[in-house]
Amino acid sequence: MSPGERQAVFQYIDKRFDDFVADLTEYGRVPTISAQEKAFEEGAAATVRILDRYGAKARRMPVPGGPDLVVGEVVEDEQLPTLALYNHYDVQPVDPLDEWKSDPFRPEVRGGALYARGVNDTKGNLVSQALAQAAVRETGRLPVNLRFVVDGEEEVGSPHLLPFADAHPELFRAAAATIEGSDHDEVGRPLFTMGSKGILSVELAVRTAGVDQHSSIATVIPNAAWRLIAALNTLRREDGRILIKGFYDGTHKPGKEELSYLRRNTWDPKAWETTYGTKVLGGRTRFERLKAHMYSSTCTIDGIWSGYTGAGHKTVNPAVAHAKLDFRLIPGQRPEAIFKKLLAHLRAKGFADVQVEKHSVFEPAATPVSSPISQAIIAAMKEVYGREPNLLPWMSGSSTTWYFTRVGTPAVSGPGVGWTGGRIHAPNEHIRLVDARRAIKTTAAAILNFGQAR
Amino acid sequence: MSPGERQAVFQYIDKRFDDFVADLTEYGRVPTISAQEKAFEEGAAATVRILDRYGAKARRMPVPGGPDLVVGEVVEDEQLPTLALYNHYDVQPVDPLDEWKSDPFRPEVRGGALYARGVNDTKGNLVSQALAQAAVRETGRLPVNLRFVVDGEEEVGSPHLLPFADAHPELFRAAAATIEGSDHDEVGRPLFTMGSKGILSVELAVRTAGVDQHSSIATVIPNAAWRLIAALNTLRREDGRILIKGFYDGTHKPGKEELSYLRRNTWDPKAWETTYGTKVLGGRTRFERLKAHMYSSTCTIDGIWSGYTGAGHKTVNPAVAHAKLDFRLIPGQRPEAIFKKLLAHLRAKGFADVQVEKHSVFEPAATPVSSPISQAIIAAMKEVYGREPNLLPWMSGSSTTWYFTRVGTPAVSGPGVGWTGGRIHAPNEHIRLVDARRAIKTTAAAILNFGQAR
Repeated sequence: MSPGERQAVFQYIDKRFDDFVADLTEYGRVPTISAQEKAFEEGAAATVRILDRYGAKARRMPVPGGPDLVVGEVVEDEQLPTLALYNHYDVQPVDPLDEWKSDPFRPEVRGGALYARGVNDTKGNLVSQALAQAAVRETGRLPVNLRFVVDGEEEVGSPHLLPFADAHPELFRAAAATIEGSDHDEVGRPLFTMGSKGILSVELAVRTAGVDQHSSIATVIPNAAWRLIAALNTLRREDGRILIKGFYDGTHKPGKEELSYLRRNTWDPKAWETTYGTKVLGGRTRFERLKAHMYSSTCTIDGIWSGYTGAGHKTVNPAVAHAKLDFRLIPGQRPEAIFKKLLAHLRAKGFADVQVEKHSVFEPAATPVSSPISQAIIAAMKEVYGREPNLLPWMSGSSTTWYFTRVGTPAVSGPGVGWTGGRIHAPNEHIRLVDARRAIKTTAAAILNFGQAR
Repeated sequence: MSPGERQAVFQYIDKRFDDFVADLTEYGRVPTISAQEKAFEEGAAATVRILDRYGAKARRMPVPGGPDLVVGEVVEDEQLPTLALYNHYDVQPVDPLDEWKSDPFRPEVRGGALYARGVNDTKGNLVSQALAQAAVRETGRLPVNLRFVVDGEEEVGSPHLLPFADAHPELFRAAAATIEGSDHDEVGRPLFTMGSKGILSVELAVRTAGVDQHSSIATVIPNAAWRLIAALNTLRREDGRILIKGFYDGTHKPGKEELSYLRRNTWDPKAWETTYGTKVLGGRTRFERLKAHMYSSTCTIDGIWSGYTGAGHKTVNPAVAHAKLDFRLIPGQRPEAIFKKLLAHLRAKGFADVQVEKHSVFEPAATPVSSPISQAIIAAMKEVYGREPNLLPWMSGSSTTWYFTRVGTPAVSGPGVGWTGGRIHAPNEHIRLVDARRAIKTTAAAILNFGQAR
């Protein structure tokens, strides 16, 4: 494709950029909170509507027990290879609601950014990719076929998607796949990640009595909160090291090339000190912090609750206590094996009374930097941004990457509309419009590059 | 007073026992949850109405910043000594609401018991004492004057009562005082307690960031829940021993007489295994368990919360975590001193970032078994129940006992309508009507005994 043709694609995107904002504003109003099983129907219908509007013929596929999967196909030529584009139409819960500056489901542009739950993670990426392929198609010809795969329960770990994927491997098999979209850094340099960490999320529950008691008899009756805390204490050292036997077995060790591009990466996790008003740990240099961020597995308390948590004070010895935990895992670690090790650990430490419910599992996954899809996106980023992107071996979040890699599809992050301060999963989630415009162009260029490389 | 006159008092009580149930049913409908600042006006008005109905001239006294104190006076003769009767019209919160078998504010008789929040703790005691004094007065003559003192915020630790009591010592000064009412055991034997433990309740809060984050960056950002747990861990050993330096300073050691009546006490904390569906700790014999229950100070987690506690799973690294704690203290321990030691402890252990808010303070208090009010009640119990009551040096809960003892008034528990399985502070609070009827008679007999002893 000539520079002139590339220019036409980018002009098309500039011309329709307001459509992107308008369509994302419409899409962002659907409160598809999967953790609360909200608006699944409305969310799937809105996804079909958006895809159809950009010429991707979309259909809903029932996922037993879960929300529909939406699949949008753009078939240029049956002989061409297919690029799969994975996103999800569900979003995270919005609490604490009172920390939002505007209604999380009334998207609003302020200071060049669009605020609403899901505009970053990941409705914005879906709409951006829909527009990108339309730009390529309507100014010329797609060099690949495309398949949008849009999940409705990613934020709760896609609990129903795995058996569905087993029954429909053809949806996940492709020449390559992009998963959602990578972030920009503070100064707008794009990131590109070639995989994702895994996750095991669980809920622990402990019951020490049939019913809560007046706290005056806590002299001789066990307290569920103390019991849960005692169990949690056996899991993790204060410095973050996880104490479950065999937890680190098989963990990936970075090679020279990986450490080399990690060292060239200009992004510093220390930036989160400003974004989140906190102290960033992990080391004294940018490289140390980045290495800690990439190669640390975590055990995070996502939530804990027991007893009276309302206004004032209730003197009660609680009978039950709960904690939601997630373990972020790096390639080589196996969440199902770690779940078994967690159960064995609790038994061995004398906490057989702690009930463990598995909430979600994603395997970690990674695709090499030398893979054609990696190279196509890196080249597109160089073209649109005029410089090398920051590279990471995987994103620090978990994703459905392994739904694709497990059936042999190289899978990496798509060029994304978000930025690292975009507060995904937190109040005031947003995207910067300047990032979004570039991400759409990058996606279009990457589609062209990937087609040429085949 | 002759046996015949005593008989007339008891017959009066039997005749009006239905009034007790009806009046308590009316009183129990007022949802005076002080922790939620509910129905203070309605609660004070209902208290005045009940006292007036039984001939105790009642008035409301404004307590700066808090709900009104209700004071009801029965003055037989200015020259007679005064017995003060302390109760409270506020109640505990009702959650978890779904564990209640009937509406907590629609008192209901089932199987010989009256169920509702507060019927045991302690609206039932107030109505029982109102009826008891009416029985003595209307069948003869009161040998003492009476002063009902009815608090509106006991369940939150009476935070506004102390300065009020400093300004009105005359309300707390008396020949003796009874505080609420002691429980019966499973088989209906009455308990009599001669003081109360103290309490220090606090709320801890820790903030590790300005805002919650996606849990994927918990690799390098501290987690508020883990931080709070680390702080809590320094406070208490798993066996319940409290690790704050100087916590046990000055703690009362039981003498021979105390251990002797404790050994004769037939009640076994093991009974709570059935009541609460739990495992009772503290020792292998009844005496060991009772001693553990009496002489153990506690650090109880009344509530803990952080992060996402709703349905499903949210992968969030929480920025803030909270815990409500209470320390139950035995005579000799000083809550204000322990509060200072707690702050010093957290600083010394490296947890200066943990904020501590004092919620309530009650000093422990004890009155000797040889005191006239103790002897009057013990004799009344022997008469009504036909056997020796179980004696305890103090109740395991905290109470306003020290508001009276600190101005020189011997103060003990009144004969109470409740029983040890009455689920105070928990769902399905109730009293057994057979216990209540005997408690009313005991109060009447104790008033007569106390008057004769003067």
